[in-house]
Amino acid sequence: MTASPSRFDPEALAEGVLAGSPALLGRAITLIESNAARDQEPARRLVSRLLPHSGNSVRIGITGVPGVGKSSFIEAFGSRLCEKGLRVAVLAIDPSSTLSKGSVMGDKTRMEKLSGHENAFVRPSPSGGTLGGVARKSRETMIACEAAGYDVLLIETVGVGQSETTVRSMVDVFLLLLITGAGDDLQGIKRGIMELADLLVVTKDDGDNHRRALAHRQELRMVLHYLQSPTPGWKPEVLTCSSLEGTGLDEIERRIDAFRVQQQGNGHWFRRRRAQSLDWVRSLVHEALISSFESHPDVASHLPELEQSVGAGRLDPVSAARRILDCFTYPFVGR
Amino acid sequence: MTASPSRFDPEALAEGVLAGSPALLGRAITLIESNAARDQEPARRLVSRLLPHSGNSVRIGITGVPGVGKSSFIEAFGSRLCEKGLRVAVLAIDPSSTLSKGSVMGDKTRMEKLSGHENAFVRPSPSGGTLGGVARKSRETMIACEAAGYDVLLIETVGVGQSETTVRSMVDVFLLLLITGAGDDLQGIKRGIMELADLLVVTKDDGDNHRRALAHRQELRMVLHYLQSPTPGWKPEVLTCSSLEGTGLDEIERRIDAFRVQQQGNGHWFRRRRAQSLDWVRSLVHEALISSFESHPDVASHLPELEQSVGAGRLDPVSAARRILDCFTYPFVGR
Repeated sequence: MTASPSRFDPEALAEGVLAGSPALLGRAITLIESNAARDQEPARRLVSRLLPHSGNSVRIGITGVPGVGKSSFIEAFGSRLCEKGLRVAVLAIDPSSTLSKGSVMGDKTRMEKLSGHENAFVRPSPSGGTLGGVARKSRETMIACEAAGYDVLLIETVGVGQSETTVRSMVDVFLLLLITGAGDDLQGIKRGIMELADLLVVTKDDGDNHRRALAHRQELRMVLHYLQSPTPGWKPEVLTCSSLEGTGLDEIERRIDAFRVQQQGNGHWFRRRRAQSLDWVRSLVHEALISSFESHPDVASHLPELEQSVGAGRLDPVSAARRILDCFTYPFVGR
Repeated sequence: MTASPSRFDPEALAEGVLAGSPALLGRAITLIESNAARDQEPARRLVSRLLPHSGNSVRIGITGVPGVGKSSFIEAFGSRLCEKGLRVAVLAIDPSSTLSKGSVMGDKTRMEKLSGHENAFVRPSPSGGTLGGVARKSRETMIACEAAGYDVLLIETVGVGQSETTVRSMVDVFLLLLITGAGDDLQGIKRGIMELADLLVVTKDDGDNHRRALAHRQELRMVLHYLQSPTPGWKPEVLTCSSLEGTGLDEIERRIDAFRVQQQGNGHWFRRRRAQSLDWVRSLVHEALISSFESHPDVASHLPELEQSVGAGRLDPVSAARRILDCFTYPFVGR
């Protein structure tokens, strides 16, 4: 079976992206995001061609529970950067969007001002199904945006599955947005997420909320004292802002810049990026190994029964693991 | 090549263990911990034989940085349980002990009183090299202790590598010991560890330390408010104790018991154990797959060069992963 030829010409797209054409960048990303078999090889060629021109942006991850004001923050913060002459690309990692039709940027009009700015490129979440698939496409989309000359990448995610860990593994600096309030509001904070963040930002620090935002900041500062920083040499900070009034945004920009200067100075910035790439290779390889193992017919047919025996306490896990592994290696060993 | 016969008779050992003989339990554990090839099959038979008689203890994991007083706590807490008529087994998971000659129970005399109690069984860390190896032996040792009728298992670990996560994955309830004090004392708390704990215990709540211990407890309670519980339905608690004066130990016992009653009542206790067994099968299988992959000669010879290309930004991670996977599957596909 031969795949029909791709609609895309990767060489022409690469040239257009490198020339900074937003229209061709959009088309390049459509190729990257394509699930069609015929598009896989052109997409690979496109990414290879763009790769040497990537790496020159500041990659900023942004997360926070629904309702925290991520879209408003990105709209306000991104617009401010654009007005200063920076070119800003906004991406999203949201494996849930194909199911729920998305809380992340499902509605592009929420970023009306930013989307309309000539320095901005706003791309909604790719429809990719699994987190792994979405993440792969998003990483390649980042390469394309960087090759197109964007200075800042804002990568947004909601707390679905492991999506924050995934985003943390592809960015330079990670922001956790939090809302003012106490008690039940905090239940949305996922396990381990506080320790992924370089900057915590208390949103909606405006009007009647101001006093509560400051109190919340104080509390969070104390909590941070007990948690480990995700970034060697950097002590996570708590800031507040109002996307509505535009306050606090300059300070956030300054702290991100201080982070960048410090991390580039101590060499960790590029060490982290190198480690991220290698981790990515490793996780791609491991995922492929495990998935080919689990889809092996003998494994697939024996696994449920063995798991049931282990679950019922009739079989110890070590023996179960050995029997499952025997299913897999037998066809090769037996030849 | 045929292995020489094992010195051990698994049937006789199993009978001795089930009859509650501490001497034969010790010998059974020596078989389980053996790295000798000839002992592997007898060890497997022993574990299979004991498995149906296991599962009746409360498995308690205990961690904390060096200096927090883990040994003193286990000595005091374990002795108290023994005096109440409970049979207590103490194990340790310490992959570092083979290198450092061990901070975990390397010196058995630190638990002199407990070791001497007729209801106690104290076993130092197995020498097993890797965490995976030590963990496997420890899990099987737990099965042996349960089959021998111990009511409470105390599994101690120091914060080396992933050892807390490993211990969390084999126990019912997890205690994090913390010392009174502030600032630099806290630097030893590892990433994510606070969110593994069902109970936080501030140690050395005695003499001049009392006021500071209470203040520390208050702070920790506030911090917990921002973190997720590792156990559905249970809100982690902060307690204080003095191993020296014996205060607070009864309350810790009561809270562990409340945890058990609640978790057995809501069904999570056995669901967690079942999930732990299945996770263990999965991680054994994944480790074996990855290790056989990485030791494949073609993979081993190409991996460094591919990783270097990725690190230098000359090759994208997706292409690198594909080339590595091609090394591995080729010999089979090509036949």
